[in-house]
Amino acid sequence: MANKKRTFCYSLCLLTSLALNLFFITNLYLDNKLNKQKLSWSREAAAEAEAAAIISCSGHGRAYLDGLAVDGKPICECNTCYGGHDYSVFSPDCAADADSGDPLFLEPFWMQHAAKSAVLIAGWHRMSYTFYDQSFISQELENHIRRVHSIARNAITKGKYIVFGGGSTQLLSAAVYALSMNLSSPASVVAAPLAYPLYETQTNYFQNNHFKFNEDALLLNNSSYTTSNVIEFVTSPNNPDGKLREPVSRGPSVRVIYDHAYYWPHFTAIPAPADEDVMIFTISKLTGHAGSRLGWAFVKDEDIYQNMMSYISVAEMGISREAQVRALKLMKTILQGNGLEIFDFAYKKMADRWEKLSRIISLSKRFSIQQIPPQFCNFFEKVRGPSPAYAWMKCEREEDTNCNQVLQAANIIGREGTRFNVEDRYVRLSLLKSDDDFNLLLHRLYKLVTLEDDAKTM
Amino acid sequence: MANKKRTFCYSLCLLTSLALNLFFITNLYLDNKLNKQKLSWSREAAAEAEAAAIISCSGHGRAYLDGLAVDGKPICECNTCYGGHDYSVFSPDCAADADSGDPLFLEPFWMQHAAKSAVLIAGWHRMSYTFYDQSFISQELENHIRRVHSIARNAITKGKYIVFGGGSTQLLSAAVYALSMNLSSPASVVAAPLAYPLYETQTNYFQNNHFKFNEDALLLNNSSYTTSNVIEFVTSPNNPDGKLREPVSRGPSVRVIYDHAYYWPHFTAIPAPADEDVMIFTISKLTGHAGSRLGWAFVKDEDIYQNMMSYISVAEMGISREAQVRALKLMKTILQGNGLEIFDFAYKKMADRWEKLSRIISLSKRFSIQQIPPQFCNFFEKVRGPSPAYAWMKCEREEDTNCNQVLQAANIIGREGTRFNVEDRYVRLSLLKSDDDFNLLLHRLYKLVTLEDDAKTM
Repeated sequence: MANKKRTFCYSLCLLTSLALNLFFITNLYLDNKLNKQKLSWSREAAAEAEAAAIISCSGHGRAYLDGLAVDGKPICECNTCYGGHDYSVFSPDCAADADSGDPLFLEPFWMQHAAKSAVLIAGWHRMSYTFYDQSFISQELENHIRRVHSIARNAITKGKYIVFGGGSTQLLSAAVYALSMNLSSPASVVAAPLAYPLYETQTNYFQNNHFKFNEDALLLNNSSYTTSNVIEFVTSPNNPDGKLREPVSRGPSVRVIYDHAYYWPHFTAIPAPADEDVMIFTISKLTGHAGSRLGWAFVKDEDIYQNMMSYISVAEMGISREAQVRALKLMKTILQGNGLEIFDFAYKKMADRWEKLSRIISLSKRFSIQQIPPQFCNFFEKVRGPSPAYAWMKCEREEDTNCNQVLQAANIIGREGTRFNVEDRYVRLSLLKSDDDFNLLLHRLYKLVTLEDDAKTM
Repeated sequence: MANKKRTFCYSLCLLTSLALNLFFITNLYLDNKLNKQKLSWSREAAAEAEAAAIISCSGHGRAYLDGLAVDGKPICECNTCYGGHDYSVFSPDCAADADSGDPLFLEPFWMQHAAKSAVLIAGWHRMSYTFYDQSFISQELENHIRRVHSIARNAITKGKYIVFGGGSTQLLSAAVYALSMNLSSPASVVAAPLAYPLYETQTNYFQNNHFKFNEDALLLNNSSYTTSNVIEFVTSPNNPDGKLREPVSRGPSVRVIYDHAYYWPHFTAIPAPADEDVMIFTISKLTGHAGSRLGWAFVKDEDIYQNMMSYISVAEMGISREAQVRALKLMKTILQGNGLEIFDFAYKKMADRWEKLSRIISLSKRFSIQQIPPQFCNFFEKVRGPSPAYAWMKCEREEDTNCNQVLQAANIIGREGTRFNVEDRYVRLSLLKSDDDFNLLLHRLYKLVTLEDDAKTM
């Protein structure tokens, strides 16, 4: 009897122990299957990045690896208007800042695609001045950028050279130098109103004997014929009003720099792929990574291309390898979903913002915004509504000659019309910023509009 | 008896099973202790980087994350002169290329410090145009750079503003603009021979009504007094000859841009910390990361600083955030060993190269190189021998008027003297490149020297 009891007890213990063995072995197998590769030297950097990312900042801020740190650990950088010990306290008097074109509306997309978009840079990654082919350009990144354009159907890149620059900003200047350096007489650089202010600022800053900004041309409205050397900036879709544009200058010596920063399905219908001689794009408005300072130009003519490459070489000896390897990862993420994921996300977000803003402005007689008709989009293969990067707002009352002041009184910061060479009756409101920023803008605008005596109700 | 046997068998099985469980539990405990944090979204990026790093390329090449890929996996980019299916085959006719200042001699240091120098960049890292304080500059990186100077004892940074640029290259240009923009008459930009060629190339390229490169000044040898506006570039230690230099121009309107790219214990004794009004440094020659395109300037005068910031803003709207976060990680690695590790490694490597080269040249009557006397170094706190970045070689035979051609005949590529505005009897040989490159240079030089009729033997 005692033996039987002992045997039973042994059997039970053995079974339990075997079950535990099985559990451990299965786990080990699963663990190995999931984590095929044990990490070594990269683990510390990965853990650091996750430790920074896990800091929630109450949803109103971000902790970055290179942020200010306390005891070696990064602390939250809170969103505008938020503070307090846990970054959740809203400051009621804080202004709704809709000034800059900071494309933070895409931040949530990259958070949703964390695993696919992260990149780990080894200490010895690409230390050289040049790539393997002695160039300043990652061939892989170039290939991926061309594929992104191909799926977005927004540009014909075949048969065109590519130049990388420090944002589109540096490429604008490189293009002006390249197009003017071998001319017999100086070129007039022009941009029809409404024009992105940097064209004038930058051209004036770098002015030399080869080119000069022509302020009068800012008054051009219609097609103007000229026989002299002209370099025209054409922003399409335009900043600030989102319109697709063509050059206004015509003549044998007119050269055009197409700034297509916003020519993506996020912001506009794509009626046809662009196919111009000099076309400039930037990662800032494609993926939202303004901080990367990475732009690219497609250039048809070999001489102009060589001139632009000289500019980049003399000015900076090429563009950061870190920005390039990260951009490659972002392009790969875009291409994995054939672009549908990001373009869908970005279009829906921008269209939704536009609709919400439009609904508020429609209650008002004091303010109006630009009209953008629905248009067929080659990318979405259907007619689609507006989703511009900026609202171009007009103060309709005769006495409201300074629209920005009117907004400022309601604690809203816009960019004044004179910056775009028109009267201050107009003001640009950025729709590109974070959800916190945009929601505050909506809230303040609604409050302002409902103060009108004859405001309609929603 | 049968029962006893069964009990014994049970006991044995139970013991084995329990031992196995103990093994699993111990392992699990150890594993958890070692890998405190389980990785999630960062694991894929980390694994990708390790997969690229593990490709050995037979020690004569590198596989990079953004290298050309076959079946999605990066393939080796082999070092100059190496090829074959496993990158181990040396091409005997391949030239020893000692032309560029590519600082790959530091690559092994970063490979030895893989865990500390890697950085993982999340998809949403620093997307904005600006940092939290609306600047283009990481405050953390600035603090760390100042600390690195403090331990290297090579510059007094207190009370000076800092500007980041796209390599020192962009800052040279920014400084010329900044120093000349408010002058009553155009400034002559000068550099005494031997001068780094980019000063002339870049100044000529960007020439405007505020400044002009003065070629005649290249003939200046002695102190020259002037009352006109002069901007002088002073490279110290000098490229190509490694000498510590002072300006040659004197006068009330002389402004000096100190290019201190090589003022690190790697390349020169540090007699005292530099304390000039405009001092430019670059990560390229400190950590060897030429591809990052990151430089910094210390500027004493607030107006000049503001002018330089305007330049960076108008030209490019600041510097890549990816380059900045990586640079921060590199600076942290440097600081962990109080600089001793990297400066020791770099000095020893450069001194060793110089010694080997000197020994070969000492056998020759046909060639000579510059003499660099031992000097007290503030960083190492002792007298130290030479370790320059370049050898400045002279062909001593009367008929060898083109020294580069003489070298080319021996399959060696240098940079000709005329590039530095002196006769071609001189040639610059870079000592900064990879071990493969340097060893080939030594080999070819030795062969060339031993061909001399009256060569001494080692």
